[in-house]
Amino acid sequence: MIERAVRARRQPDSTLVGPGHDAAVVAAADGRIAISTDMLVEGRHFRLDWSTPREVGRKAVAQNGADVAAVGARPTAFVVGLGCPPDTPVAVLDEISAGIGEAAEEIGAGVVGGDLVQAAQVIVSVTVLGELEGRPPLLRSGARAGDIVALAGTTGRSAAGLALLLAGNREFPELVASHLVPEPPYAAGPAAAAAGAHACTDISDGLVADLGHICAASEVAIDLDSRTLTPGRTLREAGAALAADPWEWTLAGGEDHALAACFPPEVVLPEGWRPIGVVATGRGVTLDGKERSAPGGWESFAPGSAR
Amino acid sequence: MIERAVRARRQPDSTLVGPGHDAAVVAAADGRIAISTDMLVEGRHFRLDWSTPREVGRKAVAQNGADVAAVGARPTAFVVGLGCPPDTPVAVLDEISAGIGEAAEEIGAGVVGGDLVQAAQVIVSVTVLGELEGRPPLLRSGARAGDIVALAGTTGRSAAGLALLLAGNREFPELVASHLVPEPPYAAGPAAAAAGAHACTDISDGLVADLGHICAASEVAIDLDSRTLTPGRTLREAGAALAADPWEWTLAGGEDHALAACFPPEVVLPEGWRPIGVVATGRGVTLDGKERSAPGGWESFAPGSAR
Repeated sequence: MIERAVRARRQPDSTLVGPGHDAAVVAAADGRIAISTDMLVEGRHFRLDWSTPREVGRKAVAQNGADVAAVGARPTAFVVGLGCPPDTPVAVLDEISAGIGEAAEEIGAGVVGGDLVQAAQVIVSVTVLGELEGRPPLLRSGARAGDIVALAGTTGRSAAGLALLLAGNREFPELVASHLVPEPPYAAGPAAAAAGAHACTDISDGLVADLGHICAASEVAIDLDSRTLTPGRTLREAGAALAADPWEWTLAGGEDHALAACFPPEVVLPEGWRPIGVVATGRGVTLDGKERSAPGGWESFAPGSAR
Repeated sequence: MIERAVRARRQPDSTLVGPGHDAAVVAAADGRIAISTDMLVEGRHFRLDWSTPREVGRKAVAQNGADVAAVGARPTAFVVGLGCPPDTPVAVLDEISAGIGEAAEEIGAGVVGGDLVQAAQVIVSVTVLGELEGRPPLLRSGARAGDIVALAGTTGRSAAGLALLLAGNREFPELVASHLVPEPPYAAGPAAAAAGAHACTDISDGLVADLGHICAASEVAIDLDSRTLTPGRTLREAGAALAADPWEWTLAGGEDHALAACFPPEVVLPEGWRPIGVVATGRGVTLDGKERSAPGGWESFAPGSAR
């Protein structure tokens, strides 16, 4: 079934041996390959009453593609393990595969292999390979005091979309779309690496949480400038409609799969990147110099929020 | 949890960036990387009342490692997606991870990343990378009439072990062990590629079925010589104990993860390989020139079987 879906697609030049053998062979021109894996489970990471099967496939590609982009690599190949109950309509599996295939093709990557098994629920397990093209890999551990913290992509839109879906609110389809199919800024990762960024991460757990991973790995502190992160009009309107705090979505919501990186201060930020804070000595993430008071507690001090 | 398990292990030199970042980076010295993925599901691919969690982890590594060995690659890195119910004891997850880690380490590969998610049943999704080390990849499509068909490893022992488990028979622990933790002849794949083999496959669906894949992909026929495949004493005794046909296990049983390859007739077979048949013009697999009569129908003509 997977082979049927992927064989129909054009493989990029980087696919040296495609599906149909015991293993595929993918180019790794500079002698290194970046690799990451994620597992999406029905009912936890997606709901088939919210997402079309095609969107599930597209989300799986986005989520994994962002991980290799975060180390500065260009996604080149995906393999897919697909588990499903025996009564799953073939059309659902075909659509998941089609979503994976088209999303991969859009970013120039191939789907080079897969496995289809029976399971109690729909499970999509994706592994992505990426080419570093001669660049050093961006790690979480390279940030230094004095670096500029920059963001590529959006934060908070996916969390807002999830809140809208849970509330049954259909007024903001563009936010719901951000949740169902995130659009990571793939090119921003390689661009950051080429520009000499010191550290980078994908925002999947939430901006503050993921920057916290950089702080821990790099043994630094990060202070965010709230003026650079003010939620836009759509997020504010959605917050008002749900009586929710859009700052919470922006600072703690994951799954937009934005990228955050730390650049030396003398670097001109590449296209797509905008400054949001600075790296300092110490530990942990602050906003305008203030610590988060408690989980979910951003609203107690975030500027412009209802108190 | 996975990071805890894998960070404790020594990474091989091929792991350029290990766990702890958004993606790992693995060496691909000759500019290519082999990749394969498999998903193992509790109740279908393993039973936790038959296997220890450590054996489940070891089996996942063996099954995937054999796939890259079949294209002539040396396994270098694994990533693991692990799904489990929320009430799964941490010790079970630790033991699965430990099994994966120790089995990978034994074959010189690293476990470089993973994902742990909640699921309705235990799911182990493994992706393996392999180095071709300058050799051409072995495909299913390269066999030519006149080639010698050769086997590395065993067939039938895993199927016998499964039959014994299903029957509750504990007389043949070495066959049960072959089912719970197959031991693929990893080095035989690279050796076959170095010797100039034309085609190769992992035996996971059964000897005749997997050779059938070579026949289809290469547009050839294969005739097996029954004298080279006669079930050994342990298999015959287990067959007698279960009133089962050991030829059926040998010819149709998968999951030993032996390798079968087609060599030009002038090649001296590398260590670990033994001839079992020849490639001819035509299509399909025969035994001593005879076709299989029906699914499960080997016993109707296989030499030495009870009729």
